[in-house]
Amino acid sequence: MERIDLDDQNSAPLSPEVAEAIQGALKLRGNPSSPHAEGRRCLQAIERARAGVAGLINARPEEVVFTSSGTEANCWALTGLTPPQAAKGRQIVLSAVEHRSVLQTAQRLEAQGWAVTVLPVDRWGRVDPEALEAALTPETALVSLQWANGEVGTLQPLPECVRRVKARGILFHSDSIAAVGKVPVDLRAVPADALSLAANTFGGPPGVGALVVRKGVRILPLFVGGAQEQGRRAGTENWPGIVGMGRAAELAMDRLNQAQARLTWLRERLIQGVSDRVPQALFNGHPTERLPGHLSVSFPGMEAEALVLALDLEGVAVGMGSACTSRTMKASHVLKAMGIDEEHALGTITFTLGVETTPEQIDRLLEILPKVIASGHPELVEGRAR
Amino acid sequence: MERIDLDDQNSAPLSPEVAEAIQGALKLRGNPSSPHAEGRRCLQAIERARAGVAGLINARPEEVVFTSSGTEANCWALTGLTPPQAAKGRQIVLSAVEHRSVLQTAQRLEAQGWAVTVLPVDRWGRVDPEALEAALTPETALVSLQWANGEVGTLQPLPECVRRVKARGILFHSDSIAAVGKVPVDLRAVPADALSLAANTFGGPPGVGALVVRKGVRILPLFVGGAQEQGRRAGTENWPGIVGMGRAAELAMDRLNQAQARLTWLRERLIQGVSDRVPQALFNGHPTERLPGHLSVSFPGMEAEALVLALDLEGVAVGMGSACTSRTMKASHVLKAMGIDEEHALGTITFTLGVETTPEQIDRLLEILPKVIASGHPELVEGRAR
Repeated sequence: MERIDLDDQNSAPLSPEVAEAIQGALKLRGNPSSPHAEGRRCLQAIERARAGVAGLINARPEEVVFTSSGTEANCWALTGLTPPQAAKGRQIVLSAVEHRSVLQTAQRLEAQGWAVTVLPVDRWGRVDPEALEAALTPETALVSLQWANGEVGTLQPLPECVRRVKARGILFHSDSIAAVGKVPVDLRAVPADALSLAANTFGGPPGVGALVVRKGVRILPLFVGGAQEQGRRAGTENWPGIVGMGRAAELAMDRLNQAQARLTWLRERLIQGVSDRVPQALFNGHPTERLPGHLSVSFPGMEAEALVLALDLEGVAVGMGSACTSRTMKASHVLKAMGIDEEHALGTITFTLGVETTPEQIDRLLEILPKVIASGHPELVEGRAR
Repeated sequence: MERIDLDDQNSAPLSPEVAEAIQGALKLRGNPSSPHAEGRRCLQAIERARAGVAGLINARPEEVVFTSSGTEANCWALTGLTPPQAAKGRQIVLSAVEHRSVLQTAQRLEAQGWAVTVLPVDRWGRVDPEALEAALTPETALVSLQWANGEVGTLQPLPECVRRVKARGILFHSDSIAAVGKVPVDLRAVPADALSLAANTFGGPPGVGALVVRKGVRILPLFVGGAQEQGRRAGTENWPGIVGMGRAAELAMDRLNQAQARLTWLRERLIQGVSDRVPQALFNGHPTERLPGHLSVSFPGMEAEALVLALDLEGVAVGMGSACTSRTMKASHVLKAMGIDEEHALGTITFTLGVETTPEQIDRLLEILPKVIASGHPELVEGRAR
């Protein structure tokens, strides 16, 4: 039986176009740093990909620095943007629902003497722009606030937050990994200073990302010893991955509007179906200000891992908690920050829909899910509509 | 006319087996951190690759941490191995011919208050093990010494150096990027604490490497916020690249002995031919303790970049100076440290031979090279044998 992939965020397939682009890049010989013909062809392929990624977020190509993951981009943003600001002050401001790569890097800065202000969020996972502004001081060196949350799908009020922070002349970094390719992200319209991206969240290959650094913003390199990426990131480039990211960005740009409408429609079908069949289910995140194809649902009393594995046996892949920390079983810090109790938090799974998701797959899930839940927790499906 | 690639170090082609392994990995969907079937298959592919890389250097699989390049491995080794040793002392020792990623990271540590001792080398580029031992103090936290030099091909007396440093209980890191897959590198026979590797130097894809960290050695992660690589390197893995690196390691291991003999023979043919045709040419590096397929030659008075481009027009790719800094024209720090004057240093190019190199290609180069040189610098080819 055909498997149903409702964990698109973690297992989006490469489209044929992206796979083809990577295969073409694998045939290139040469080192982009070498001046001969082989090297120049590699460099051209990288520069075309850079333009593709820049196009997706309306940045300038030279503002895009390729990294090996979104996590690298986040860690680098915090450790690289802060030292040039240290003379001004040593405070950074972020939200309680940032990805762990942001939160844990901030903890490292804290151990080095930086003050870290963590903003609370409301029950939907959103920061209050006024509270953000109130947290800024003359010592604030950097604000880091995600564009969208990868666990619950909530969009932050980014334009408003960026406006307030930039009015104070403070650097603004946004982890936009979960948002890019899903909703419009426009660096000229929302003038953040740095954005983190990961290719695999918009149909590109794993293990390649970018930090987009606005022209004129100073950042210390993480790796030194080579002239690659204009000296901002030394090391031989992963050009097959980079080329794949560039192609995926072009495709995501083309498909953005249509995908938004289609995924929203599919998600509403899923919400309605789960509500009908599992009345005790709780939907997390903002009802409207959210990623279109993303749904986080808590089944109180269930264990998320057991549910993921049971659905896996029935041929359905879904996500669990925070993707990057899922080898450990702890209540998600995001759900906690939103005030969701431990029982709900530990029973939370994530559906992410993608270009390959069909209404028929949603309907099959809606047949399978109540049975899987009823076998262990019949109380959750009591009073179901059908 | 078929191009001749004598810049194998920078433009080694992927073998069909490696390309096939990567293409297989590109078809895997899933995130290795996800518990469902798709995720588990990715994780298995990564673990098989880890065993392959470990086999090539006789390490344990769990000692291999994948990185995004050899440069990352070098930068991480120096910044990650030193903090746990800082209580003991804040001195590091390295050689003047290390890769710039090592030297420049050491400079950053120096700016943070570390003492950096740079050992001189002899005319062949070798460190004296006695001088190394004499530089060690009770405050020495780390020694970093390359296994082989990527610019001139000289092998360091690593076993002797490791023995002396480990007898004092001091950590030893070796940038073994240029050596692995070319000469035997055996972590159990030469018990360094950490080794840097890059896949593209032994037939693997670009933009993937590893830091091999001996069991029990403490290292601070560079990226945090995820459980990948046993928490030593957070971030979604580049598993297509990792799988390619693993397959390339298996192949390099199988071919090592035969390749050593064949490449040494081809290199001797090249040395003899260049000596006969360009009597003023100077061969750099140790005459016998060297990488088999590697040859660095200085043509005094010539400009390396002009020569590389002229050969490129004639259909031959060769290397120039240090690969990662070749976008800037400066005399190589390696050649300087070996006492080679500016005139020779600026006229230095590097031939690196690979599995695809044939005697016929060497012979064709030997026809082309004297003509290219004679057109600008006839004095260099005066007195040539034929």
